[in-house]
Amino acid sequence: MLSKNQIKRITGLHQKKFRNEQQCFIAEGLKVIQELFHSNYEVIEFYSTNATIELDHKYKSQIITESDLKKISCLKTPNSCLAVFKIKPSEAISCKGLTLVLDDIRDPGNMGTIIRLCDWFGIEQLICSNDTVDVYNPKVIQATMGSIGRVNVIYTSLNNFLGQTKLPIYGAFMDGEVVYNTLLPKDAILIMGNESNGISAEINSMVQHKISIPRFGKLLKTESLNVATATAILLSEFRRKF
Amino acid sequence: MLSKNQIKRITGLHQKKFRNEQQCFIAEGLKVIQELFHSNYEVIEFYSTNATIELDHKYKSQIITESDLKKISCLKTPNSCLAVFKIKPSEAISCKGLTLVLDDIRDPGNMGTIIRLCDWFGIEQLICSNDTVDVYNPKVIQATMGSIGRVNVIYTSLNNFLGQTKLPIYGAFMDGEVVYNTLLPKDAILIMGNESNGISAEINSMVQHKISIPRFGKLLKTESLNVATATAILLSEFRRKF
Repeated sequence: MLSKNQIKRITGLHQKKFRNEQQCFIAEGLKVIQELFHSNYEVIEFYSTNATIELDHKYKSQIITESDLKKISCLKTPNSCLAVFKIKPSEAISCKGLTLVLDDIRDPGNMGTIIRLCDWFGIEQLICSNDTVDVYNPKVIQATMGSIGRVNVIYTSLNNFLGQTKLPIYGAFMDGEVVYNTLLPKDAILIMGNESNGISAEINSMVQHKISIPRFGKLLKTESLNVATATAILLSEFRRKF
Repeated sequence: MLSKNQIKRITGLHQKKFRNEQQCFIAEGLKVIQELFHSNYEVIEFYSTNATIELDHKYKSQIITESDLKKISCLKTPNSCLAVFKIKPSEAISCKGLTLVLDDIRDPGNMGTIIRLCDWFGIEQLICSNDTVDVYNPKVIQATMGSIGRVNVIYTSLNNFLGQTKLPIYGAFMDGEVVYNTLLPKDAILIMGNESNGISAEINSMVQHKISIPRFGKLLKTESLNVATATAILLSEFRRKF
């Protein structure tokens, strides 16, 4: 059984403030927990409602009741296990390869899907504006399906980063050049903007190549693609020739 | 104030059984409701917590309390309005154009995102296996952002449909031909399979061209792309040359 203090400490990790204080985050579900464990994230605590669940022979789970799991879980329908991991320090920014940049992405589901896409397309570095949703938000962790272990996520001032890079800077816009007609280099920076407002005015002026995905339906001009699906299409465009 | 009977009838629409019985479905949020209204879906009831909300001069909302809205809403944090619409009879299947086929897609969020993608890419017809999630599921309706009004969604036996069509049949597989190297026709059928199991064995044998999106990261072979993001990339591939 979990003590009141334990429950309080773990539910605290649902919030960014306490994640920063404790330098820990939670993950739920065996698949995600295992992926993180095998990606060298350090497990601090590992709870499950089922004695047969284990990470390996060294890491047996601590058995808790379903009612306790429900108290510490972020999920409406909790999975059978939950683990607390240590946050890893950010790695240094590298200046090569295809780099994805997120300017103020707010939705945890979009963020998680985008990290999974980076993993698929071999993007090792994801640069986020400081106002982008926290990568250790439990909903982001769930949506990444564990691929967070293979993508280096760095929060920084985009202004500084973009001002210093020597890579060509591409950005997704509603009215950019049709991406299908654009010659894309192997190494570049691709910026995706906020769900409602797109790329911010400040960053807009630093974009050298504005690209867009054309619309084929009889849509109103105000419609847009969801940012995660737009990212999927653009990353595929950058990779398809190489 | 809503009567107990009204609340019971509307919350019934959260379930497929009662939607089929009543031939009605619910939508929440002004944007989605307006899109459906302008797509010739017939409004039966229109509730809001705010007297200034209206569809047009003819359709004023019936004002209800926030507590009543919470009772009839499917959302954790209800929007300010909810409407009940009449289900439209399915249209006849057409045999031209690019047609998307879903084989047992279960997640409402994926289904909604896929409908929105159809709308973007001008896919007018979405054929679903009978076990695919119901398009009138409230979570699907929310995720479509109203684009359901511009896509004709038809549930049918895929076996029959695929047996009769003259269009070339493409299917998404983990080990198909790399889509970037495949010559894609303008008019075709593209099949996307279930989130866990892919395209079913029965349908597999009817696929003439197996295609796949290559993986660039250092991933385990068991990983796959989310079906909605994979659909985004493949629809873009079908459209990019035309």
